Amino acid sequence: MAADRDVAAWLEKFGKALARPDIDAASKLFDDECHWRDLVAFTWTLKTFEGRDEIKAMLSATLAGARPAGFAQLGAASGANGATEAWFAFETGAGRGTGHLRLRNGRCWTLLTTLQELKGFEEKSGAARERGVDHGAQPGRASWFERRQAEAKALGTERQPYVLIVGGGQGGLALAARCKRIGVPALVIEKNERAGDSWRKRYRSLVLHDPVWYDHMPYLPFPDHWPVFTPKDKMGDWLEMYARVMEIDLWTSAKCLRASWDAQAAEWTVQVNRGGELFELRPQHLVLATGMSGFPLVPQIPGADAFGGRIVHSSQFGGGEDWRGKHCVVLGSNNSAHDIAADLWEHGAMEVTMVQRSSTVVVTSDALMEHAWGRLYSQAAVDSGIATEIADLTVASVPFKLLPSFQKPVYEAIRKRDAALYAGLEKAGFKYDFGEDGSGIHSTYLRRGAGYYIDVGASQLVVDGSIKLKSPAEIQSIGEKSVRLSDGAELPADLIVYATGYGSMNQWAGELISPEVAAKVGRCWGLGSGTRHDPGPWVGELRNMWKPTAQAGLWFMGGNLMQARHYSLYLALQLKARLEAIPTPVYYVDPVHHP
Amino acid sequence: MAADRDVAAWLEKFGKALARPDIDAASKLFDDECHWRDLVAFTWTLKTFEGRDEIKAMLSATLAGARPAGFAQLGAASGANGATEAWFAFETGAGRGTGHLRLRNGRCWTLLTTLQELKGFEEKSGAARERGVDHGAQPGRASWFERRQAEAKALGTERQPYVLIVGGGQGGLALAARCKRIGVPALVIEKNERAGDSWRKRYRSLVLHDPVWYDHMPYLPFPDHWPVFTPKDKMGDWLEMYARVMEIDLWTSAKCLRASWDAQAAEWTVQVNRGGELFELRPQHLVLATGMSGFPLVPQIPGADAFGGRIVHSSQFGGGEDWRGKHCVVLGSNNSAHDIAADLWEHGAMEVTMVQRSSTVVVTSDALMEHAWGRLYSQAAVDSGIATEIADLTVASVPFKLLPSFQKPVYEAIRKRDAALYAGLEKAGFKYDFGEDGSGIHSTYLRRGAGYYIDVGASQLVVDGSIKLKSPAEIQSIGEKSVRLSDGAELPADLIVYATGYGSMNQWAGELISPEVAAKVGRCWGLGSGTRHDPGPWVGELRNMWKPTAQAGLWFMGGNLMQARHYSLYLALQLKARLEAIPTPVYYVDPVHHP
Repeated sequence: MAADRDVAAWLEKFGKALARPDIDAASKLFDDECHWRDLVAFTWTLKTFEGRDEIKAMLSATLAGARPAGFAQLGAASGANGATEAWFAFETGAGRGTGHLRLRNGRCWTLLTTLQELKGFEEKSGAARERGVDHGAQPGRASWFERRQAEAKALGTERQPYVLIVGGGQGGLALAARCKRIGVPALVIEKNERAGDSWRKRYRSLVLHDPVWYDHMPYLPFPDHWPVFTPKDKMGDWLEMYARVMEIDLWTSAKCLRASWDAQAAEWTVQVNRGGELFELRPQHLVLATGMSGFPLVPQIPGADAFGGRIVHSSQFGGGEDWRGKHCVVLGSNNSAHDIAADLWEHGAMEVTMVQRSSTVVVTSDALMEHAWGRLYSQAAVDSGIATEIADLTVASVPFKLLPSFQKPVYEAIRKRDAALYAGLEKAGFKYDFGEDGSGIHSTYLRRGAGYYIDVGASQLVVDGSIKLKSPAEIQSIGEKSVRLSDGAELPADLIVYATGYGSMNQWAGELISPEVAAKVGRCWGLGSGTRHDPGPWVGELRNMWKPTAQAGLWFMGGNLMQARHYSLYLALQLKARLEAIPTPVYYVDPVHHP
Repeated sequence: MAADRDVAAWLEKFGKALARPDIDAASKLFDDECHWRDLVAFTWTLKTFEGRDEIKAMLSATLAGARPAGFAQLGAASGANGATEAWFAFETGAGRGTGHLRLRNGRCWTLLTTLQELKGFEEKSGAARERGVDHGAQPGRASWFERRQAEAKALGTERQPYVLIVGGGQGGLALAARCKRIGVPALVIEKNERAGDSWRKRYRSLVLHDPVWYDHMPYLPFPDHWPVFTPKDKMGDWLEMYARVMEIDLWTSAKCLRASWDAQAAEWTVQVNRGGELFELRPQHLVLATGMSGFPLVPQIPGADAFGGRIVHSSQFGGGEDWRGKHCVVLGSNNSAHDIAADLWEHGAMEVTMVQRSSTVVVTSDALMEHAWGRLYSQAAVDSGIATEIADLTVASVPFKLLPSFQKPVYEAIRKRDAALYAGLEKAGFKYDFGEDGSGIHSTYLRRGAGYYIDVGASQLVVDGSIKLKSPAEIQSIGEKSVRLSDGAELPADLIVYATGYGSMNQWAGELISPEVAAKVGRCWGLGSGTRHDPGPWVGELRNMWKPTAQAGLWFMGGNLMQARHYSLYLALQLKARLEAIPTPVYYVDPVHHP
């Protein structure tokens, strides 16, 4: 095949240029418009380089340390989006990687390089799995259970964890599982009573808005009969089981009170309240896996203190059953606002009013399944042999800069598919959009982690007036039994739900460490796209996520289940390299950003 | 390929002969020596037919009801053991099946027909999986958690289970999982506090003697890093997790006190003590999944009552840690006897003596991995694409009559491989064999469910005298601090372990139902091979296992993890067919047998 020849030729030239090394020759293999996304392999961080100059600068700094070699095509090349693309294997001095290449006219348009394992510290699985028992007689040996009990008991008391992970949701558990598999002593502390409670304690009608194929945890995929959309309690049970089966060291009912960095000792001092008992831990790395949705944004509205009904943030909302026959006002118009408004309506609230402050991206779940997930995360994808790991790497292979252009046609199709729904929303006065540049939900999620509703039925309730709408509007003040809106209307209210979203994960650094460290590290998440709630400058990766921050020993882990699964690998490898004293020269740290 | 042509031609002729129907023509397609093993597809039981006459008789009786059709080869035919073999699909009036065929000179030597699913009651998985949520607004709807809670609460109280499964080990849970997936209301009662305790409560050094590839539960295979040999507590945790994730309805701390068959109502009355509270259940089917190793055989030895030390059956033995510096006597020489003797020695017992009553099949675990498991249950098998289901069906395709001839070469190779060990055992006076006909452990297991040791190190302790041996010998009487053996020797003893095995599962019928029902049903397990502990007549399948018994509504579920996984399918389908009133004319019930 011509495509295969092109790819083979490019990889050979590229490998040779890097080996000589001839950075100029290497850079000439790239197109004028070119993007190289590196996940830990060359740069020991997550970073996308745009244009030949950035690539040359990166190679000049990293090549001697990275020692890349062995570039070899994996599988057959294919043509898509006017480009030839192919997977390849490669290695560096420290590890082995997987890469992806898109060529245009024989030159590289996009390049992805990812570190997959560290040499000498490969995961023991398949043929290399552990035996589980040493045959033969060994005086005094302990059983698996005794060893496991002793190990769990010692960690955090007699023996300090190398990594302390704050938060036992999907992010913390995925990272801990990966750490366990490559021998990084990690302890997870979870403030709730049980693993999975971060899901169980959300509002009762919550069901994952992403389909099952997107949501597998590492190592232990859901079985083949798992429902497409996982109900929250079922997800909680799965995570609880996962922690046990993966032998994750987890303290439940354990709250992080305070952490401070001891620069001298290069370790953290962390105060933990575990079920009423105080512990001081001394990990070398602190991972905040406290959740994108961990830090509720609660607006301060005049009169709230004197309100005669109940005010809850969406994160504290249980279910609609207590509000039958009552007047309910939901402030906000994203996922939680819609789910909660629908739940209240389903339970017979007298009146449910959604107060929409600004425009929302609305896409039906069915449309996403058809047009967005289908190619990579669906039964059809599984049946056609696309493994979850390949799907994840395929997503990773699209540089964030190009993502909008990849996504716009999807949303144009969706807009046509659900034209009737959008007409209805417009008629109802609901403000919707497809992202400022029409690139839809995925872009919006990366830019601001909020601002959308994956419609599973509530939009129809808005359209037909079952959920009343005020838009655009704000709650200006709260009376004893009412709210007054910015348009002058006054609504009776027994319940006010603030579905007003969450702060940056960085706020956790402020809360748990210090305002100084929070200031030093800056905001988490966001690409710097210059769109609403995602001010520039452009950084091209999610700020501070899964990679070194401005604060030594401090890491952020978060995001949806796909991100927890995929990016936990890179964070675990970064931690393992440090544990094993493998040099990890970090090429770049995000400049501090405060919105 | 000639092999494929032969198979296609045979299947076409066979299908046509059955369709006409022309039983004589069908029978002529079989070789003089021929075996047809049917698992529920034609006969609604598990039965192997030997020779043309048995096959003709079976077809005469079953063909009109079974309505087989659509025989179609699956995959490529292959040659092995001097025969051409191939997989095929077929269907019956009630369901769809998978079959396996071995041809010799164009005629059928062995045929396997298995029912895999019932038409109209297919499992919902893959593309047919449930959604997990109904999108759209539905007033008053319950969440998954609420529905699941209500369902679990109602079963056994407001709503009677269709099937009551006594015992929550691998057998009971595998069956319950399959029942759940095809909509058979089944309740498992487990006498222990937690699912998995039947493993946890065994002796502390216990580790599965079969490798991980053999031990997967249905639907949810162990992850790829799971150790080769699963330690008992880890197995217990896995089963506990399994019950939860598969949404099995399970009562723990629930003991079956008494069951009686109400022939009028065609249902059971079952008294259950659940955590101190008494329940009366009325299931239509009662499955005893109480374990092959559920009913300890405890010898009555004179003087035992006055013994000043401790006597335990192997099932009650905890671990060697309490017996440092003590004199220990282990009666028996099979798996548990060896494991326990080695554990005592490892913990520094002063003296450990194994009292061997009769010859034992001894094979090292490594030899089994190399020569016995490897082709079907190993990493190599997985890597070459042999799915667990195919491995199970391949095992099932060998009629029990032929199994010894398939197995003997394996054990000849093993005998050579481990010649040094066997010479050592002989020198130490240990009586070993390879089964009466040299067909090894698998045969021995099927014939009597005991009589072997899969060596994981203790044999070497016997060889070098670390474990002392008396063989052949019996304990004739017990003194205050000693045992007297049949050879006249007297040994000091602080601990006596009866590693004397377990009774037939049928004893549970006697204990839980009545001696009359136990007598009517007869012994469970065993093929009637006419070898020691497996007296004839030959029945060719395991007696009473996973199939209709002489007692209406009574079923036995048991065996190792592979059997739990594989045979639970056929039992679940038999139960589902009855639930849906699909005709299930049972062609044959084992004649009652009492050894």
